[in-house]
Amino acid sequence: MTPKHTRIELLTLGDELLLGLTANSHLTFVGAQLARRGLALARNVTVTDDAEVIARQFAESWAAADVVITSGGLGPTCDDRTREAVAGVLGQRLVFDEGAAAAIRERFARMRREMTENNLKQAMRPERGELLPNPNGTAPGIWVEQDGKVLCMLPGPPSELQPMFVAQVLPRLAARGLLAEGEAYVQVRTAGIGESLLETRLAPVLARHGDALSVAWCAHLGAVDCRLSSPDGRMGRMELEALARECAALLGDDFLCFGHDSLAKVTADLLRSGERMLAVAETATGGMLANCFAEVSGAGKFFAGGCVCYSNESKMQLLDIPEDILIQHGAVSGETAVAMATGAAERLGADYALSITGVRGDSSVPAGEAIFMGLYSPKGAWAKQLSFPGSREIAKQRAVNAALDWLRRELLRTRSASGLEAGAPSMRM
Amino acid sequence: MTPKHTRIELLTLGDELLLGLTANSHLTFVGAQLARRGLALARNVTVTDDAEVIARQFAESWAAADVVITSGGLGPTCDDRTREAVAGVLGQRLVFDEGAAAAIRERFARMRREMTENNLKQAMRPERGELLPNPNGTAPGIWVEQDGKVLCMLPGPPSELQPMFVAQVLPRLAARGLLAEGEAYVQVRTAGIGESLLETRLAPVLARHGDALSVAWCAHLGAVDCRLSSPDGRMGRMELEALARECAALLGDDFLCFGHDSLAKVTADLLRSGERMLAVAETATGGMLANCFAEVSGAGKFFAGGCVCYSNESKMQLLDIPEDILIQHGAVSGETAVAMATGAAERLGADYALSITGVRGDSSVPAGEAIFMGLYSPKGAWAKQLSFPGSREIAKQRAVNAALDWLRRELLRTRSASGLEAGAPSMRM
Repeated sequence: MTPKHTRIELLTLGDELLLGLTANSHLTFVGAQLARRGLALARNVTVTDDAEVIARQFAESWAAADVVITSGGLGPTCDDRTREAVAGVLGQRLVFDEGAAAAIRERFARMRREMTENNLKQAMRPERGELLPNPNGTAPGIWVEQDGKVLCMLPGPPSELQPMFVAQVLPRLAARGLLAEGEAYVQVRTAGIGESLLETRLAPVLARHGDALSVAWCAHLGAVDCRLSSPDGRMGRMELEALARECAALLGDDFLCFGHDSLAKVTADLLRSGERMLAVAETATGGMLANCFAEVSGAGKFFAGGCVCYSNESKMQLLDIPEDILIQHGAVSGETAVAMATGAAERLGADYALSITGVRGDSSVPAGEAIFMGLYSPKGAWAKQLSFPGSREIAKQRAVNAALDWLRRELLRTRSASGLEAGAPSMRM
Repeated sequence: MTPKHTRIELLTLGDELLLGLTANSHLTFVGAQLARRGLALARNVTVTDDAEVIARQFAESWAAADVVITSGGLGPTCDDRTREAVAGVLGQRLVFDEGAAAAIRERFARMRREMTENNLKQAMRPERGELLPNPNGTAPGIWVEQDGKVLCMLPGPPSELQPMFVAQVLPRLAARGLLAEGEAYVQVRTAGIGESLLETRLAPVLARHGDALSVAWCAHLGAVDCRLSSPDGRMGRMELEALARECAALLGDDFLCFGHDSLAKVTADLLRSGERMLAVAETATGGMLANCFAEVSGAGKFFAGGCVCYSNESKMQLLDIPEDILIQHGAVSGETAVAMATGAAERLGADYALSITGVRGDSSVPAGEAIFMGLYSPKGAWAKQLSFPGSREIAKQRAVNAALDWLRRELLRTRSASGLEAGAPSMRM
């Protein structure tokens, strides 16, 4: 059961956000974390570092919301005015917290850096507030409960805010019954199938449960998530998981995973479980294909490496592509894509290889208009042509996702053929 | 002279933003574009797609601001309710625009797709409003002037919003005197020098101009910008540019460029002007080093390619690194970094090469703790060790920037030595 009535606002503070110098990663992170626990962020407001502006905006949000989360402005400099501004609105004095001061001093000592006095400002807290320890920085967070509402103030750097939010904020919100103890929905993640076709295929199964079931669809660049929940709790967790397994079985290879694993992670797991190595070769995507495997934890176990080949010479030098192929078919062709994948696999001693070759968006041809992909496997090598509309950045990401999905499907097919798969996909959330 | 009194708010609409499914790129883009023209965004508010919520938030923003920009909710589906909600607050009826309807029909015909009737909803506009043509999608933007204020509604996809904002919104705002006709400041971009040291070095020059000059510092991952402007217009554009040139001369190689070019772009320009080719080889950064050169327009002219080498075997196979070096010094060592750079240059026939080798953050060693870089040039090859605090993502980006800056400085030194450089850096804005 999810506490739908809680109104939660996120206040992101900082001129650098409004000047477009820094992306607002706090909205993406906090929004996604809350959604997983059944709580939708009602509003995000970004305002400047000015104390008066912060006070006015906080007063407005505090009056409207049950929970207000702020980010930024807790540091040691004179620009960091959130603490004072917010305490003023709450009508609380700021007091000096000896324990926090000791922790700050100790952190500087441990890092063998000299502590300037202004750092101790970070040990100030509202008199009836509580400090949240910050193991990744100097400014602690602040937790205040007042008038039946919750205020939670977090430091601005993502590397400090994110672990503090997961380790300290989510459990406190859950303990006060403001969000679900565990994940609020069961997620069926798919790849390579459009949202409308997905809806059509799952409709008969989902319709059976009437309004006891709530279904949300979330599409992102080649992947669509189907989120199953039961708003009034009529369907229990076990029942939702059984339904998710039924959906997965119905979708076959279009099913990617339960939960939140990325396409690269799922593909990597298939490679790892089969003890297979992968190599990649790319032109238009400039290193993005390699990077998405490199991002997976333990990449050395399944990822041999990759080549980014801009010139024809580099294709010949790094991947042993015969000059004939480049001359006869061109660098952007199915033949070259196959030769790139084959060359990468052979040169790097890999079992599988992916290649992407295409033209850049800044020439006369729009980005993604002519992209060829190659797939090398122990059973053979193939090419296919795809085109992606949209900006160059989007086209590159879609091309990478399409290549990953092609490999994933090939690995699934191999696994089925070898009889390694044991029936329905396993439930890992 | 910049119209500082204009209060401008950005309303970003969409559940996908609050659920953390999509990053709010509109804030970054619109904020940066306005800042370049001397106008700081006063507030950004993100709310859900709900018509009532949109109406309430728009009414609040419209009362407080001189200019309100909205993004999203102009599409053809029943979720797209911004148009109706906002027209209601303005007290305007929606009318059907025949010209816009014809453009939408024509777009579908041109793309050989069937047009469903709901697409014509996008031809509706407030009766005293004006439509902004959308050459990159079906939903036109909307421009309304009322009560001495401006409302500008833009479509949600970045590939549609961004060109519309630059080509149609900025000129209209400038024509109404709401922002500067040209760039509002002269920017001196630096690399490889910290903000406080930079301030100290430029202080004597900047102090000369007293309060006629306004200086803003913007730091981002290894680069710091110094923005010079004259709020009351006492210093003209020419005078600001002369001052910027003086700063640049004072900074020597720490000066990167005037304006907004990236470190990769500046480094690429140096390679191109010397007709030199570059190759890269990387482990820990997984393709990011290659990708930042690949992103530069016309990369084929100076970028031969790159290798992402995860395994020792791939280092030997792709880059001809002797096994001895890997065994004796380890994959993460200065010796291996030099061998990687040298191997990449030789294999790809490049004049220069950069390498980055390091451990991943998910092992027992924190990310960035041990990063070695290699630089190969016609004059020799060197390695250096650096360490970067912060999250793995930040450490990777900082490592890439440090490598780029190393190459940039080496190219500058070569250019000076060859006498090619003609005095002070040129002013390209």
